[in-house]
Amino acid sequence: MIETKLKEYGYEFKNLPKPLANYIPAIQINNLILTSGQVPLVDGEIKYKGKVGKNLTEEEGMKAAEICAFNCLSAINNLLGDINKIERIVKLTVFVNSADDFVNQPKIANGASDFIVNLFGEEGKHARSAVGVNGLPLNAAVEIEMIAKLK
Amino acid sequence: MIETKLKEYGYEFKNLPKPLANYIPAIQINNLILTSGQVPLVDGEIKYKGKVGKNLTEEEGMKAAEICAFNCLSAINNLLGDINKIERIVKLTVFVNSADDFVNQPKIANGASDFIVNLFGEEGKHARSAVGVNGLPLNAAVEIEMIAKLK
Amino acid sequence: MIETKLKEYGYEFKNLPKPLANYIPAIQINNLILTSGQVPLVDGEIKYKGKVGKNLTEEEGMKAAEICAFNCLSAINNLLGDINKIERIVKLTVFVNSADDFVNQPKIANGASDFIVNLFGEEGKHARSAVGVNGLPLNAAVEIEMIAKLK
Repeated sequence: MIETKLKEYGYEFKNLPKPLANYIPAIQINNLILTSGQVPLVDGEIKYKGKVGKNLTEEEGMKAAEICAFNCLSAINNLLGDINKIERIVKLTVFVNSADDFVNQPKIANGASDFIVNLFGEEGKHARSAVGVNGLPLNAAVEIEMIAKLK
Repeated sequence: MIETKLKEYGYEFKNLPKPLANYIPAIQINNLILTSGQVPLVDGEIKYKGKVGKNLTEEEGMKAAEICAFNCLSAINNLLGDINKIERIVKLTVFVNSADDFVNQPKIANGASDFIVNLFGEEGKHARSAVGVNGLPLNAAVEIEMIAKLK
Repeated sequence: MIETKLKEYGYEFKNLPKPLANYIPAIQINNLILTSGQVPLVDGEIKYKGKVGKNLTEEEGMKAAEICAFNCLSAINNLLGDINKIERIVKLTVFVNSADDFVNQPKIANGASDFIVNLFGEEGKHARSAVGVNGLPLNAAVEIEMIAKLK
């Protein structure tokens, strides 16, 4: 059970409020789920703000990436009602809010990738892109979007 | 009819010239359409140039995003011959040309999301990522790519 | 044969080592292949490092993009065992490590697009996004991810 493993990390799915905006946290299309870009929101606050390599350490960036990945799973769980309907994590796109000279985006992205593979095992092994950007919503340290495949 | 609603915004589809480059404005793959990244081109000129939060206001950025979204629809219309073949707008990825301290990318992206939902209603509600970047083609303020699902 | 044309460019597929990380170079999902973001690695070294428009010329950026595109094909070939199983190149997303005032990302991306169309002909014509970013893994000049459709 994914939820059991999540609890070991201290994460628990909550019922998310219905978004007021004209976009949605996740969408099903054929047998795929695409999430919106998720930032490291915890209880309505961005937990890690700023640019990695300037305001934040790599370790903080990795933790931010893990929270983003959890928030992707939350969005999927909220859509499907059951995260165990996921067969495979297909793809992560990881945008790292980066100082202009920061080049270790893969390490930051590992904060998400390692978390996902710890949860899903072989079925968690995904394709991934990690890029640096000079700005993210609400000054988030990381933004991640996920593609997952349904059973 | 989408075209009727577009006219209220002052937009009208035109026959696009065949692109000379080795990429295409939109492609159908299974029951999905993927567009190329579209910039706020109007009559062959970029209407909003520069970085939001530095050279451009948020309102200008939002309007740029709306034009990008229209250009995505134009690319789809040109491919399909009829925009009404679209069943659902699935995903927008919104790249905002941003000053290094600009963090309100979601507001800029709303310029596109609100436009799409005004046109398509519930079927326009999409997943979305909004990120800041430090440079876009032709110094465009915004670049948007769209995924849509066919009926 | 794609391999024959690749040889004219001086490229040859090699057996890639199994990645040690928790993500994979490419994944099949339904009849699509999605690659991870590929950088201009040649024999384990990034061949073009730095920001286009600052440390690198446009010509160097274009060549970096070509290598990224080849590395996408390598990842696909390694997954499928035969690149000729590809029916269509669907999409390229091209991230260009850019000086803050660099706006010619489409020219850099043409280094990849022209290469792909030279290899695949009409079936190589793809949708494309090209954006500038302020940082990429290992200080790579370009990062590209590819979507391809199987026969």
